[in-house]
Amino acid sequence: MSYCLAIQTKLGLVFASDSRTNAGLDQANVATKLTTFVKPGERVYVLLTSGGLSLSQSVLAVLHGEYGAGKGLAGAATMYEAARIVGDAVRTVSSRDREHLEKDGIAFNVNFIIGGQIGTQPHELYMIYPQGNPLRATPESPFLQIGESKYGRPILDRAVRYDTTSLEQATKLALISLDSTMRSNLTVGPPVDLVVYHANELKVRQQMRLGADDPQLMMIRTQWEQELRAASQRLPEVKFPEA
Amino acid sequence: MSYCLAIQTKLGLVFASDSRTNAGLDQANVATKLTTFVKPGERVYVLLTSGGLSLSQSVLAVLHGEYGAGKGLAGAATMYEAARIVGDAVRTVSSRDREHLEKDGIAFNVNFIIGGQIGTQPHELYMIYPQGNPLRATPESPFLQIGESKYGRPILDRAVRYDTTSLEQATKLALISLDSTMRSNLTVGPPVDLVVYHANELKVRQQMRLGADDPQLMMIRTQWEQELRAASQRLPEVKFPEA
Repeated sequence: MSYCLAIQTKLGLVFASDSRTNAGLDQANVATKLTTFVKPGERVYVLLTSGGLSLSQSVLAVLHGEYGAGKGLAGAATMYEAARIVGDAVRTVSSRDREHLEKDGIAFNVNFIIGGQIGTQPHELYMIYPQGNPLRATPESPFLQIGESKYGRPILDRAVRYDTTSLEQATKLALISLDSTMRSNLTVGPPVDLVVYHANELKVRQQMRLGADDPQLMMIRTQWEQELRAASQRLPEVKFPEA
Repeated sequence: MSYCLAIQTKLGLVFASDSRTNAGLDQANVATKLTTFVKPGERVYVLLTSGGLSLSQSVLAVLHGEYGAGKGLAGAATMYEAARIVGDAVRTVSSRDREHLEKDGIAFNVNFIIGGQIGTQPHELYMIYPQGNPLRATPESPFLQIGESKYGRPILDRAVRYDTTSLEQATKLALISLDSTMRSNLTVGPPVDLVVYHANELKVRQQMRLGADDPQLMMIRTQWEQELRAASQRLPEVKFPEA
């Protein structure tokens, strides 16, 4: 399993992903699930992926092939078109592999998130389903998740606001969401890849990988647990009616 | 979907459940998922259930029938035996219904939690799988969940401790866990049923139902959201390496 999420606010985009892959419980490996395509000053895309690693690698191979030839994502006129190009690549791989997977009862399962900005157009964020169709994040639903998304959702539901959440705050919330998932589910694990895209910069200036023993990640884990415990202590006691 | 959870600490047991049932999205109804069997001074059982309502009703009909005749749960010598009696009732219903469900591709899916105390024996807590086999909560794993369990798990993982968590605190944590789930998943909804069993009392003195507009439930929801937002603000800002 994987867990990736992206948050869109008025001021930009935050992307975060775990890096654990597994085929069964025995074969746990590290694989980057975050990919960037950047032409500084012209366009920035950040992609996140979950699902079968073989499939997502094939989709990225298609996208990189087109991009290298100045086509595909390199020439998309809008973020919507970029999302469609990712969906087309998913369908290309589907037409090559799906039938062979299904012969052995394996589902064709690969999900993408793509966010970024082209020129002077607004920054946008999309999810691409395994069928290739796109879904756009909106001010009312300003985050998208793929993979093992439930453990890390409550904090996002409660704290992410398109209009008022700063990118610094959204970054913290993304790490809390990922850490909550890693704490409760063994198949989601570090290192964590993180990109913060500031609207209208048309370059990626904040990107890093946080290992399992990264001091910032450990501090967030420890302090968040202390905060949660203290916050639950502060809630008033539940009163029962007299028996 | 449903969400039920029970917490075992040194001092007793806390049980909480939602009450929403649905067959598809259209038929949303309220159904109690918490049932008590009490002989004051002798034995207390609290049962929680998730899965097919038709199935859980049938299992409870078996258990009530036996109990009314002074058999089954009425005479169990230990909590382990009580858990086995619930499992036997699940198997009785399975042998009657499973085959007919599977003809239409419907899984035989019903889960139970049973906790309580018999005489001077320790209070215990078990989950019963759809196959009828029991799993006991332990000091290292002091809570059990059935149904839509992921949204509400992080707070339990981080704050429930068998030795040190008070029953008052465990009650708050159970409501936070349920509220987090109701906030993020429409198929889990109020009213919330709540029982706190204090070890060695051999009666149920704290039980109540909290409706959607119950002031205590609304207060927990509001204050918890405020606490989470404030706590995330207090975490130090994430620092990126200089580009």
